[in-house]
Amino acid sequence: MGVEQSAVNRQIRLAARPSGLPKPSDWSLVQEPVPAPGEGEFVVEVSHISLDPAMRGWMNAGASYITRLEVGEVMRAGCVGRVSASAHPAFAVGEHVYGTFGVQEHALSDGKGVVKVDPSLAPLPTYLGALGMTGLTAYFGMLDVGKVKAGETLVVSGAAGAVGSVAGQIGKLKGARVIGIAGGEKKCAWLTGELGFDAAIDYKAENVRKALRAHAPDGVDVFFDNVGGEILDAVLTRLARHARIVICGAVSQYNNTDPVRGPSNYMSLLVFRASMTGMVVFDYAGRYGEAMAELAGWMREGLIVSREDVVRGGVEDFHDTLLRLFEGANVGKLVLQVGG
Amino acid sequence: MGVEQSAVNRQIRLAARPSGLPKPSDWSLVQEPVPAPGEGEFVVEVSHISLDPAMRGWMNAGASYITRLEVGEVMRAGCVGRVSASAHPAFAVGEHVYGTFGVQEHALSDGKGVVKVDPSLAPLPTYLGALGMTGLTAYFGMLDVGKVKAGETLVVSGAAGAVGSVAGQIGKLKGARVIGIAGGEKKCAWLTGELGFDAAIDYKAENVRKALRAHAPDGVDVFFDNVGGEILDAVLTRLARHARIVICGAVSQYNNTDPVRGPSNYMSLLVFRASMTGMVVFDYAGRYGEAMAELAGWMREGLIVSREDVVRGGVEDFHDTLLRLFEGANVGKLVLQVGG
Repeated sequence: MGVEQSAVNRQIRLAARPSGLPKPSDWSLVQEPVPAPGEGEFVVEVSHISLDPAMRGWMNAGASYITRLEVGEVMRAGCVGRVSASAHPAFAVGEHVYGTFGVQEHALSDGKGVVKVDPSLAPLPTYLGALGMTGLTAYFGMLDVGKVKAGETLVVSGAAGAVGSVAGQIGKLKGARVIGIAGGEKKCAWLTGELGFDAAIDYKAENVRKALRAHAPDGVDVFFDNVGGEILDAVLTRLARHARIVICGAVSQYNNTDPVRGPSNYMSLLVFRASMTGMVVFDYAGRYGEAMAELAGWMREGLIVSREDVVRGGVEDFHDTLLRLFEGANVGKLVLQVGG
Repeated sequence: MGVEQSAVNRQIRLAARPSGLPKPSDWSLVQEPVPAPGEGEFVVEVSHISLDPAMRGWMNAGASYITRLEVGEVMRAGCVGRVSASAHPAFAVGEHVYGTFGVQEHALSDGKGVVKVDPSLAPLPTYLGALGMTGLTAYFGMLDVGKVKAGETLVVSGAAGAVGSVAGQIGKLKGARVIGIAGGEKKCAWLTGELGFDAAIDYKAENVRKALRAHAPDGVDVFFDNVGGEILDAVLTRLARHARIVICGAVSQYNNTDPVRGPSNYMSLLVFRASMTGMVVFDYAGRYGEAMAELAGWMREGLIVSREDVVRGGVEDFHDTLLRLFEGANVGKLVLQVGG
């Protein structure tokens, strides 16, 4: 649906701050006229919307690493789209762009934080996955914070997710032994099959602590954690000396209405002289270009496989699609395709 | 009591692994003949025994950063004493030494891990305090792990204890703003009065989170944690960007029979891009000499005050004296003086 055919912009706005798992009533579908670009502005017709566990945190009232979303605002989301109208010297109609355009069909932009993407180099959803924020999170988390080295043992939780799958593959190409933790046989088979992980642990079917003892007999040197909760506690008992834990997320805890479950075994940090460090990809904005170039190179060489789980629909499908993340239903990067 | 006057060596041995707070029945008082040194050995008449929260961990069955103590063994302890008999070329009768001699009146040693101490430079208990393992723990924890810098805000928990009081003073001399957390008005007055801390928070009387908001309005750059539990959780909510948390101990959790309370607010590490790192002083053994020389220099210049809380008695007073630590009854380094 192009701007030519419809003067209506459908948007998903936050109607209420969720308690626990978001409910349909936490959102409202709003129709507005498609905006017209003023001087120095352009309009993007959104084709692909990124769905990320971090979205849950943006909806909360508390302080976080990013400005909180206010009730009534368009839901924040990273998107890819096509410039459909422009009064901006640097963005021409027809160009493809990535930006935080939100869950809506058309977005007005002044170009801040917007980057052009080339659909001839990679499919558009990949710019929300391995060549997007999730790939960049894996890149900087593994290389700058985890500092994974050849011969080390790397464990990744949420390993079949958008960030985890790239983090594990970066570990492999750096020469680490890589163990993924994921939910379900299908995801685990994908990790050891297509992605070349050395081992996968199905946390729904296996005792994670026991499985780690078998797969990481010398301990875990780097743990890239997207999940938190019991899995973090299990890995803490199996660290190697001077282990580095990268805290990238805690998807198991995001919808808690009870207090977050802190890692009871955190004193393992002392026993193993280990560290646990939080990271936020936005801090590396100045290096996105070099990282994307390197990631794209690895993809061309077949060292990194990008997988997107693309749901086709409209912005009204945002809620149901988001829940798939918290059900662990997606494999790879979850994307809602609303056009294109 | 010298070896000449008594041929009996009284020892405290672990009789049972404690559950929760140690009970008198977890110990046995054993009498043995004073050992005679073989070739390359010497005997130490113990005068001062160090009491440390870490002792509680040594009594547990689980894996830790140091070999666990077996039931029936002499309780492990750092001690200062005098060589009373020697068949070792490097240790002469009358010399004063520090070593892990255990809770007993006389110890046989082959010299491994034993260092000579000079009672003319500092009183003997100081070699268990600021010039001993606790001072060294503070030194390496602050300078190598916390990397405290001038102008930063440092918070120390267990600040009136042996490690905390030195850690805070090192922060001061490096130019940090130092806030101590301790239990009771008397300890807090000592921190801000004699030790020159910028502020003290009495966790028994004040809301730690609120007090931190007042005393560290720009957030906490370095947190040196000896305590864990609720205090760690409170500080996690008040971090500055890129804060460093040094995990030195968790005295609030050592006698738990329930599972350890993990820090519920650990996701603050992500929000503030902060790190939490465990440290064990033994890893720095190769640098003890330089650190002790620097600490001794700071003491001479009056930049560091060493305070020892010396209980006079016999090895049979070990249990009651140890409990003082977990009651928070001591100010400064707790030492049991059994001779000298």
